[in-house]
Amino acid sequence: MVNQDPFTQKKKHILDSIASTNEGTLDSSPKGSIDKACIPIIDLINSFDNMVTTSSCSGRVSVFVEGRKETDNDKIKIGAKGNEGKWLFVTHEPENLNNWFKKFQLKDQEKLGLSDVAADTRYVLYKFEPLILHVKCKDLDTAKQLYAISMACGFRESGIGSNNNVAIRCSIRLDAPIAIYNGDSDAFYKLVSTEYLKLLCKISEDRFTENFHKLSILYDSISKATFAAQPEHKETKEERRERKMKEGLLKQQLLKSESSS
Amino acid sequence: MVNQDPFTQKKKHILDSIASTNEGTLDSSPKGSIDKACIPIIDLINSFDNMVTTSSCSGRVSVFVEGRKETDNDKIKIGAKGNEGKWLFVTHEPENLNNWFKKFQLKDQEKLGLSDVAADTRYVLYKFEPLILHVKCKDLDTAKQLYAISMACGFRESGIGSNNNVAIRCSIRLDAPIAIYNGDSDAFYKLVSTEYLKLLCKISEDRFTENFHKLSILYDSISKATFAAQPEHKETKEERRERKMKEGLLKQQLLKSESSS
Repeated sequence: MVNQDPFTQKKKHILDSIASTNEGTLDSSPKGSIDKACIPIIDLINSFDNMVTTSSCSGRVSVFVEGRKETDNDKIKIGAKGNEGKWLFVTHEPENLNNWFKKFQLKDQEKLGLSDVAADTRYVLYKFEPLILHVKCKDLDTAKQLYAISMACGFRESGIGSNNNVAIRCSIRLDAPIAIYNGDSDAFYKLVSTEYLKLLCKISEDRFTENFHKLSILYDSISKATFAAQPEHKETKEERRERKMKEGLLKQQLLKSESSS
Repeated sequence: MVNQDPFTQKKKHILDSIASTNEGTLDSSPKGSIDKACIPIIDLINSFDNMVTTSSCSGRVSVFVEGRKETDNDKIKIGAKGNEGKWLFVTHEPENLNNWFKKFQLKDQEKLGLSDVAADTRYVLYKFEPLILHVKCKDLDTAKQLYAISMACGFRESGIGSNNNVAIRCSIRLDAPIAIYNGDSDAFYKLVSTEYLKLLCKISEDRFTENFHKLSILYDSISKATFAAQPEHKETKEERRERKMKEGLLKQQLLKSESSS
């Protein structure tokens, strides 16, 4: 290949490095494999010359123990996944939600409440996080266009970052504390009933449905868009016939105008 | 004033329309008044010639009944605040959190669970949402700089939108279903214990603390930044002395270069 521009070189590098570890899918996600539900939209985006996906999550439920909290100027920072945080469960597929909590020791403790917690208590959090896609664009115009499409499809927390990177985000969420971790064993003390945990799973299924519905709307809108550079696309027989017809008409018009001038 | 550029005209218009309804605070929020905790950063941002805040929320706890769910292509869309959604409680101040739930009829129902809900069941949701600021910038360079500062201060969901509007966002959240609304009366059936509701309040206080801590870091970073146009700023005696010295030096150099040419 000759004289590729820097964006095309970078895109090639990203796609090559992924293809070598992750056959058939195109993304630079550190996880190493791409969420199944993201593959069609990632392939679609990467079929445009002026865009490349750099990370993605198709939406997920996660349950984790917060990391140890840190004091910062006498203020305790809320827990995050770092600092000895522990993942208990993650799934990107609604069919895996059923009875996830049976795999863990979630103990009942009568009347667990305010008097049992301190500022540094670590909670077990149950989260639903929606689709997120990061797309590096060749130029600002492409980034602006992708941003506008995403917003119009209801991804109202999208934004353009540095270097024409577009983050596509929406607000379908759950974020609920469900247990307390006392730190000295692997036991978790439930703050909610088992029925509530089952309901969270049910509500998460609804969130997944809404999330995938939004994803399909986004797919359709991007597939219909004309970005500065067109996607690589194999012409069907019918499209070829139509193109030939149009070319024929143009040729006739051209000959006509040449002969009349 | 003569020959104002379009941005400065727009900024003046925004600030004027606010000042008339909302003395002493500067913002175009539809709410009509600005959250107290936002006023210092809004005033700071608006002191820069090339930025104007267009909406803000300092962070809040809200409790609301989802609106009626709609079917869309046989899929039920999850509930949002529209479509007959009802606010039960909103506060931007942690000191108002105590016992908010005592103001409502939150009924206990033994073993409320999966069998009591359908796809169109409306939930009462408890949410913590962090600071959000929208800032219209005069040009892309200013927007990029404000975006970079926000990201560096931990507002990792920030982004540049259309017309150089920067959204400053982070991910300090809570989003938990706490009751079911049966639609035919004003009764809400609790999914969690009263102790759990108290714990949510306690955890929300921690979220507020973290949120305001982040806000103060952002304030400091913006106040130290040099944007393309400088903030209006009253010169101190010392600064005046320094400026006069520099001007004197420049004059000398100018005279020197003129005499030597």
